[in-house]
Amino acid sequence: MPAPSEFELIRQYFAAAGASRQDVVLGVGDDAALLDNGGAQLLALCVDTLVAGVHFPTDAPAEAVGHKALAVNLSDLAAMGAQPAWALLSLTMPEPEPDWLAGFRRGLHALAAAHGVALVGGDTTRGPLAVTVTLVGLVERGRALRRDGARPGDRVYVSGTLGDAALGLRQWQAGERAGPAVERLQRPQPRVALGRALLGLASAVVDVSDGLAADLGHILARSGVGARLEAARLPLSQTLQACCSPTEALACALGGGDDYELCFTVPVERERSLQQAVAGLGLAVTAIGTIEAAPGLRLVDEQGREVPVPSRGGYDHFGAAP
Amino acid sequence: MPAPSEFELIRQYFAAAGASRQDVVLGVGDDAALLDNGGAQLLALCVDTLVAGVHFPTDAPAEAVGHKALAVNLSDLAAMGAQPAWALLSLTMPEPEPDWLAGFRRGLHALAAAHGVALVGGDTTRGPLAVTVTLVGLVERGRALRRDGARPGDRVYVSGTLGDAALGLRQWQAGERAGPAVERLQRPQPRVALGRALLGLASAVVDVSDGLAADLGHILARSGVGARLEAARLPLSQTLQACCSPTEALACALGGGDDYELCFTVPVERERSLQQAVAGLGLAVTAIGTIEAAPGLRLVDEQGREVPVPSRGGYDHFGAAP
Repeated sequence: MPAPSEFELIRQYFAAAGASRQDVVLGVGDDAALLDNGGAQLLALCVDTLVAGVHFPTDAPAEAVGHKALAVNLSDLAAMGAQPAWALLSLTMPEPEPDWLAGFRRGLHALAAAHGVALVGGDTTRGPLAVTVTLVGLVERGRALRRDGARPGDRVYVSGTLGDAALGLRQWQAGERAGPAVERLQRPQPRVALGRALLGLASAVVDVSDGLAADLGHILARSGVGARLEAARLPLSQTLQACCSPTEALACALGGGDDYELCFTVPVERERSLQQAVAGLGLAVTAIGTIEAAPGLRLVDEQGREVPVPSRGGYDHFGAAP
Repeated sequence: MPAPSEFELIRQYFAAAGASRQDVVLGVGDDAALLDNGGAQLLALCVDTLVAGVHFPTDAPAEAVGHKALAVNLSDLAAMGAQPAWALLSLTMPEPEPDWLAGFRRGLHALAAAHGVALVGGDTTRGPLAVTVTLVGLVERGRALRRDGARPGDRVYVSGTLGDAALGLRQWQAGERAGPAVERLQRPQPRVALGRALLGLASAVVDVSDGLAADLGHILARSGVGARLEAARLPLSQTLQACCSPTEALACALGGGDDYELCFTVPVERERSLQQAVAGLGLAVTAIGTIEAAPGLRLVDEQGREVPVPSRGGYDHFGAAP
């Protein structure tokens, strides 16, 4: 497992800031906070900032930026099993550019409307281009999905395919502006319906934003367990397999960020219920390994021999070139 | 009244984005959004971004930045009469600097703890220095303070003194690093207790973040009324009067941003109750004028003659030099 990044250390540093409140069900350290204001459902609260040149290329289409700024937050709520409800937008840009704003709004609006999210407020300021979206969702009391419930013997699953966004980034940097991998990078489809379907079934869930190895690592650390993954079972798209060597494809699948799939663990006795629950979603889920008591992440080949986890750790925003 | 700034136009542009939801009591266009999740109280939700070099000097002490990032949001909730509860922090910085982070956390933590706010989550990313705080508060159903309730005949009030932060900015730019005006600029004291005291008394409230003329302008526009202000009644600190000519002081009081006082309107029959409600707060409130049916903001001297509103409009983030 990679060591905690500077990014992670700073997050921990702020974990105990401010007052201590009884109505905080879950604070810093999961995909979203859980809060109890006495309503029928708990509130799930998350925020993500995308900085131009760090989280999206400076020449990315404005519509894709608007889509992605909301998508990354929808993905956080999906990992909690929450139903998204309300968003706030804080937009910082050097100058108001009408064309860019129109495209950005189009991308944001389409995804928000598709998920029943109302944009209820925000802030607009002058400065280097960056977008912060805050998203609030609702989740049934006592049922929210968390990172800390994985137990030895649970099966490890992942949705969709992995590594396509990493390939898309490489293609974008090489000048390609279209194709399925670039599309995956720019318009991730948050797995909100899957998250809702996992309520009562998954023992732990995380969204894959920084790479499977790093994000599964969060489940392992919070749950106090380890995992064995079968390399041959990692779901890879035909595009990824066609464009990369097997070694490169494995590195993209385990270390590439921006996939926004869900990685989750399921007790063996619920695997049949899981298959029924996801049957109507039009989204594959693949068993890729097993939770074990011994800490750490182990990768094995088809003969069961341990192979090294590709060295690239999770996408560390502070480690990435600006 | 100043024309809507580009800043304001962009805000309006996003007002109808996303889905339309029954549980949105108040969306884009007030100090905070009001949302109803069926709890005993409504949720009040706001977000503000501070960009280095735009909203605070690049050499501002980290502790002051941490204080101010939360204070500006507390001020928004104060203007709704909400009790602050939970905050999310999104911090963007070029490199993790331990000393800066320690100071920033100290300033944020102290103010959060003083107002009973728990920091429950956030995001940390690499990029140009900027801080976004999202704040959620709770307010009694049907009692939230809004911008749209001012009626002809209501008295216009403001808390504390005006223009000190504008003086503080000028002093900072001239190299001064201490003194009451600089302190007002760097460590604004959000008027949360006053906001709570105004529930049931004020007909409209706004926080003074962009300058009294601009912010009172929001009340006038949303309420469909005008106002007459008596220049001689504007509350000016001894510091402001000592450092500025009367004309300069008036310009600071009407056009200077960052004061974070509350401006509010009160029906005449509730003025006595207002005095009782604020008696224990240790904060002066001053009647400065009257709401009138005719649109627009009029300023009069002690002889009742109309005088021009100093031309500097509200602090426009897109208009300010970066």
